[in-house]
Amino acid sequence: MSAFETQVPVLFRHCDVAGIVFYPRYVEMVNDIIERWFEQGLRCPFIDLHMERGLGIPTVRLEVDYRAPSSLGDVLDFSLTVREVRTRAFSVKIIGKVGETVCIVSRSTLVFVQSGNAFKGEDAMKSTPIPDDIRALMETFTEDPSPDRIQIAEAS
Amino acid sequence: MSAFETQVPVLFRHCDVAGIVFYPRYVEMVNDIIERWFEQGLRCPFIDLHMERGLGIPTVRLEVDYRAPSSLGDVLDFSLTVREVRTRAFSVKIIGKVGETVCIVSRSTLVFVQSGNAFKGEDAMKSTPIPDDIRALMETFTEDPSPDRIQIAEAS
Amino acid sequence: MSAFETQVPVLFRHCDVAGIVFYPRYVEMVNDIIERWFEQGLRCPFIDLHMERGLGIPTVRLEVDYRAPSSLGDVLDFSLTVREVRTRAFSVKIIGKVGETVCIVSRSTLVFVQSGNAFKGEDAMKSTPIPDDIRALMETFTEDPSPDRIQIAEAS
Amino acid sequence: MSAFETQVPVLFRHCDVAGIVFYPRYVEMVNDIIERWFEQGLRCPFIDLHMERGLGIPTVRLEVDYRAPSSLGDVLDFSLTVREVRTRAFSVKIIGKVGETVCIVSRSTLVFVQSGNAFKGEDAMKSTPIPDDIRALMETFTEDPSPDRIQIAEAS
Repeated sequence: MSAFETQVPVLFRHCDVAGIVFYPRYVEMVNDIIERWFEQGLRCPFIDLHMERGLGIPTVRLEVDYRAPSSLGDVLDFSLTVREVRTRAFSVKIIGKVGETVCIVSRSTLVFVQSGNAFKGEDAMKSTPIPDDIRALMETFTEDPSPDRIQIAEAS
Repeated sequence: MSAFETQVPVLFRHCDVAGIVFYPRYVEMVNDIIERWFEQGLRCPFIDLHMERGLGIPTVRLEVDYRAPSSLGDVLDFSLTVREVRTRAFSVKIIGKVGETVCIVSRSTLVFVQSGNAFKGEDAMKSTPIPDDIRALMETFTEDPSPDRIQIAEAS
Repeated sequence: MSAFETQVPVLFRHCDVAGIVFYPRYVEMVNDIIERWFEQGLRCPFIDLHMERGLGIPTVRLEVDYRAPSSLGDVLDFSLTVREVRTRAFSVKIIGKVGETVCIVSRSTLVFVQSGNAFKGEDAMKSTPIPDDIRALMETFTEDPSPDRIQIAEAS
Repeated sequence: MSAFETQVPVLFRHCDVAGIVFYPRYVEMVNDIIERWFEQGLRCPFIDLHMERGLGIPTVRLEVDYRAPSSLGDVLDFSLTVREVRTRAFSVKIIGKVGETVCIVSRSTLVFVQSGNAFKGEDAMKSTPIPDDIRALMETFTEDPSPDRIQIAEAS
């Protein structure tokens, strides 16, 4: 029942002309944090997920509240908690703070799929159940017994 | 009462190892589309907005539904409509399609601020009313007389 | 014996805290320009190159001179010429100007390879001859009968 | 006479459709490494450089040899050494390896300038001498008493 915690320093390349983190860069950070969590928290590095297991986890829905700016020299303290785990999809909440100030709150819903390379004519989007070992570890990061209901975008 | 329409070809740099557009790249596209709309639809290029008017428009909330993948060689047809215009904030909806397939639907809320460079110790986040000429043009892109209510993140 | 010419507007996402194009963004532009040249100048869009022909063109050497800054609102006029075409590799020069001011000069050497997805355990780097039709069109963009000699990095 | 050493894990966002690091992403890594070196090796974090000292360090020339691909799950071991320190400019060499394989060798030339925000009509490119304390520390990273001669692009 604990959060996954990790830090990201604000670098020069994250910042826009106003000197603050450009908002799409936070979305890249969200992806990096989920990637670290898979490696460190779920014991399944992305390289294993994709190559050994033949799986991918496309994001199907993303919500981000940008509450306060962060700027060069700041260190963002991120915490990730699991909002819900379903058969084939899961949702996480990521909060990023500088000191006590909440800068960003994001909610992502991801679906497990059979991985493939669309570029090579392979189907990249067929959903599949979350493997049991990953599910079991995911649930240890659930913060709250009655999370918000997950919103799954229609598979197309 | 019309949408702003523009196209973005899917390029090599947009695509991930699965051969599809990496989802943070769509968020960069959303920013580019708003930038084009300011120039072509609102007659206020970003350079004028920032330099002549001394204004910025940070995104305070973003929602994205990733409905279907797009991949190299696709051309995304985007349409932007205004959901709501308030005194200091506005919200837009952007839909991206490949042919008849909806790939992405995003909703962004942005706030007008006095621009400054946080990097240089200037305040980059003080909200200010939307200038009248911009507001008047914005309203011509409103799609629906009873739009979804805007959700404004708390200023912090 | 003509250059391939194309334009790139400087967008908000290209610019750093100093308000000028961040230098790695120019490298992304170089890639975009080569991609446009393949589509429009060589009649071989990247999607065909990769999927139908099973080829890739990794860059093995890049040189960039950043001669003058460009900033938001500028439009970069790029011209690409071919420096040398060899059996399996070619080199291009790209000049980017704002008005009469040269902002960037880049030289790239690329090698044709059998494409593969390293991510899936496939060999992504085996060099192969440039197809004749592509070679013939490439040579029409050669600017000078005695170009600088190409520098090919060692394959590893 | 020592190199500055640091590591960068290859992340999902770095990789292209071939499953290998997309070459402009290495240029972003080069920037990150120089940023870390300023903080950890030269005791001058970028935030101090820009805000307290009012300085910037635009790259005026970049050369990169891409010798071997790296892919998801690899960890790049980077080492930075100083090639030359002049009055207003310096040049560094950065080598990136995965295990014993050299993947990338870059050479960057950077110039110290009075920082300004071009975006706000300020001059962002006036060169200035390297501060003595930074110069002294830079020289401790010089690898070789007779380095390659630096190549400085013409200021424009």
